[in-house]
Amino acid sequence: MKKNLLKLKLKQIFLKHKLSKKHAEICSNYLIKAEILEAKGHGLARLKMYCDRIKAKVINPKPEIKIKKISSSASYIDADNSIGFISADIGIKQAIKNAKKTGIGLVAIKKSGHYGLSSFYAEQAVNNKLMVFCFTNAPAALAPHGAKKSLFGTNPICFGAPTGKAPFIYDASTSIINRGTIRRAERLGLKIPYGVALNKKGKITTNAKEALKGTQLPIAGFKGSGLAWMVDILSGVFTGSSHGGKTKDPFDDFSGPQNMGHLFITINPKIFIGNKFVKEMQKNIKIVKKLPKAKGFTNILYPGERKNKTYKKNLNKDISISPKILKEMEKLNA
Amino acid sequence: MKKNLLKLKLKQIFLKHKLSKKHAEICSNYLIKAEILEAKGHGLARLKMYCDRIKAKVINPKPEIKIKKISSSASYIDADNSIGFISADIGIKQAIKNAKKTGIGLVAIKKSGHYGLSSFYAEQAVNNKLMVFCFTNAPAALAPHGAKKSLFGTNPICFGAPTGKAPFIYDASTSIINRGTIRRAERLGLKIPYGVALNKKGKITTNAKEALKGTQLPIAGFKGSGLAWMVDILSGVFTGSSHGGKTKDPFDDFSGPQNMGHLFITINPKIFIGNKFVKEMQKNIKIVKKLPKAKGFTNILYPGERKNKTYKKNLNKDISISPKILKEMEKLNA
Repeated sequence: MKKNLLKLKLKQIFLKHKLSKKHAEICSNYLIKAEILEAKGHGLARLKMYCDRIKAKVINPKPEIKIKKISSSASYIDADNSIGFISADIGIKQAIKNAKKTGIGLVAIKKSGHYGLSSFYAEQAVNNKLMVFCFTNAPAALAPHGAKKSLFGTNPICFGAPTGKAPFIYDASTSIINRGTIRRAERLGLKIPYGVALNKKGKITTNAKEALKGTQLPIAGFKGSGLAWMVDILSGVFTGSSHGGKTKDPFDDFSGPQNMGHLFITINPKIFIGNKFVKEMQKNIKIVKKLPKAKGFTNILYPGERKNKTYKKNLNKDISISPKILKEMEKLNA
Repeated sequence: MKKNLLKLKLKQIFLKHKLSKKHAEICSNYLIKAEILEAKGHGLARLKMYCDRIKAKVINPKPEIKIKKISSSASYIDADNSIGFISADIGIKQAIKNAKKTGIGLVAIKKSGHYGLSSFYAEQAVNNKLMVFCFTNAPAALAPHGAKKSLFGTNPICFGAPTGKAPFIYDASTSIINRGTIRRAERLGLKIPYGVALNKKGKITTNAKEALKGTQLPIAGFKGSGLAWMVDILSGVFTGSSHGGKTKDPFDDFSGPQNMGHLFITINPKIFIGNKFVKEMQKNIKIVKKLPKAKGFTNILYPGERKNKTYKKNLNKDISISPKILKEMEKLNA
């Protein structure tokens, strides 16, 4: 489907579900961005879920989002149970403003929901010549090291820095493989790798169905578990949001709002070394790229480089939508 | 050896090597702290190296450490090639001061050296009721994902938060196993696990000697590699220090100062939710500890908990010193 047409349809759907014009525009843009990036698990596949949650009154289509100024650097946002895109979009713009003023910005968001990819927001900060951390919690999917039951979300760590070219953006979950990969394996009847998930009884399983009912494992044992715990503290405890496994699954749990938390930290990378920062970044990347390659590699990519290429490759292409989702969209727009 | 006696001897040695009384005291305290924590690779085993580097004029025993105020939150420290302990001790105290004043502190240190464990500094911030990140670079030991040669250091990520009890302190390298573990395997003639290191030719090796000449691998492939790269940017590029594999090995490379960089970010955890922070942290930890345990586990520990127990267990014990190091100390004190 042509992007313009898709955007029109999405806006219509969001307007039918009582969003304001402005918020419908924001949500449509982020969903399309996910599709362009081939991050389909964060794109149109979630449209029906957002609408269902609005109907069930666990997402507020007309949120009154409040920004409380804590200091020139810090702001605290009550998202009023908005779709995550909306509060995170406001939040990152505030974090950018704060860092431009003081050198460092800190924005916490509470009462939010799933916001797509952390890199959406990191990229905006980097395009404003800032370094950035984005943290968000997520529904329980990972067993803490030593436990056999899910508690942490896949809790991504996201860090961005300007390079003068494609942004350096590290954005990766603390789970060994993505939940989407397990879901795909289930659909296609494939096995998942050994050691990435446990079944309900706490035993390692390579059966995707069992894994989805059980729990995923964090990267590198106690190291990944500790990183996921850190993200739970930063995005959950510190922001006054859900934590300790209390974030509701947006697809399965309609008993109340998700109460997700996000934290953005923005830093002016020039505060210590001025304009040398970008020059040194370029030197750094050049050195790494020149290293002798491991077997099977012809090139070393920095984090974010591949995603940037995907974006450029797809930017002027139409978006392919599965018949199932096309049908969902028709129904939602009826 | 009794701790008092050991401290006296260490101070004598540092004074003989031209450190001021104050700096000799700081360095002795951190070395003893490493021993109490059973982190022997950061303790007395490094004493001779520090002294050798002073003699070789690649550590400055009388550094003029300058603190430049960038803003109320940010400070930039030129360590003047001090022993890392000294500048990091000044740096974390400044970061604590800044966060107490403004809610957030950011301290970059350049021209520094090996500073022991990141948790030394994180703990001080947490004891001052702050959250904290500590980043430091290190000599090349890890191959970036896709390369077969070392470039990143073992680049630890360190995060701390107050709990009202033992501090939550995550402090782990981005390598699969510690370099010390490989060194021990070499000494004892043991094999190292498959998949943690490459030999000089870029092939996986389980031979410790070959691994030390080759390169270690990061945790979780591109994920750990990206995290190590992030630490290189934060502690190296951003602080105006060595990066991209240029940090000199303190034991092997006397061609110049290490020019290591450190970055401390301190945050008042109460700025958004006030006194509820510690209560919620305790709830969070309680929930995790109550989870059903995986096979082989009777307890789930949070990051920092084990280290805290070790510290308490050893605090009133004498410190055992190997004959080799005792001899080194005698010579250095001669």
